[in-house]
Amino acid sequence: MPQTKGDATRRAILEEALQLASVVGLDGLTIGTLAKKLELSKSGLFRHFGSKEALQKAVIETGAEHFIQLVVRPVMIMDSGAEAMPALFEGWLEWSVERMAGGCLFVTAAVEFDDRPGPVRDQVVALQREWLGFIAATAGRAVESGDFRSDLDLRQFAHDFNAILLGFNQVRRLLRDPDAEPRARRAFERLLADAHTVEP
Amino acid sequence: MPQTKGDATRRAILEEALQLASVVGLDGLTIGTLAKKLELSKSGLFRHFGSKEALQKAVIETGAEHFIQLVVRPVMIMDSGAEAMPALFEGWLEWSVERMAGGCLFVTAAVEFDDRPGPVRDQVVALQREWLGFIAATAGRAVESGDFRSDLDLRQFAHDFNAILLGFNQVRRLLRDPDAEPRARRAFERLLADAHTVEP
Repeated sequence: MPQTKGDATRRAILEEALQLASVVGLDGLTIGTLAKKLELSKSGLFRHFGSKEALQKAVIETGAEHFIQLVVRPVMIMDSGAEAMPALFEGWLEWSVERMAGGCLFVTAAVEFDDRPGPVRDQVVALQREWLGFIAATAGRAVESGDFRSDLDLRQFAHDFNAILLGFNQVRRLLRDPDAEPRARRAFERLLADAHTVEP
Repeated sequence: MPQTKGDATRRAILEEALQLASVVGLDGLTIGTLAKKLELSKSGLFRHFGSKEALQKAVIETGAEHFIQLVVRPVMIMDSGAEAMPALFEGWLEWSVERMAGGCLFVTAAVEFDDRPGPVRDQVVALQREWLGFIAATAGRAVESGDFRSDLDLRQFAHDFNAILLGFNQVRRLLRDPDAEPRARRAFERLLADAHTVEP
């Protein structure tokens, strides 16, 4: 189905909005600030999105599409369960460092919406559950291939993997500490070593 | 020095503001919403704090005082380096779960201010560095007492400890998952086991 000009404009707006939201948060992303940045009229933006909440949801969905494309899909099609886990880790680092101007959007969204019931929170929760489920499933593939030990607690592994990413994001974004990445890598290596079957 | 009535009022306001900020964030904490919650006039609140930024800074400082009182001081005076680390972990859990209506204020503040240069960000950064330094120093005491291995990387330990707390906070606050705590405990036990000297 060919894209209309309106679709292409909407898409271009969402790409800018995604980067802006990663820096100022989804709440900082007002139709006013976005209009100013894009040199568009506020009424034009309203025509595209209708409300701040609709804009927030569309930005999160845009982020999720990019995330799946960059981080999830390459791992899904990998043959080796053992190689999939390091690829997932590297993919997330690339997402957070290279693709998001202000660090991972979902880390920010989790804090902004954890106490605010409503459709945006529901969307963030659903994506976070999907993400933790995908980490656990990827670890499960490594168990099936015999690379990870058979008694590995997949949900615990996913929890620990996620915590490493959160630690990295905070130390990098808040403290601007160049050791954030080597420390996250060491933590990940320890997690992997604990999950791997003992070498014969 | 005896407190004036103004001091006591300011203190009472800050306690309410701290709890409110843990739920709505420091940015959600406007002089307007706080005035409404406390049934005070906005002009009265302005007289106490002067600006939203001054209010934010005072709230963070109030949180830091409570945190030091509840989490840091009991650990500082413990004789045993080995017992100090579990006490620090339990203290943080109590702080985040029992004392903060909306989870740890500093986790929220880190995300809100990581991309916003200024005095509030400087304050949040300084507190986070203090906290990581205190974790490392506490681990260092356990090394000195021979409970933790002598080649332990103290900064890495502090980084990993902090990441466990962030993972807990996100899973508990966003996903409302009752497994957040047992998973964080298992992660902490694994971190401790790795740090301890091998049993003779």
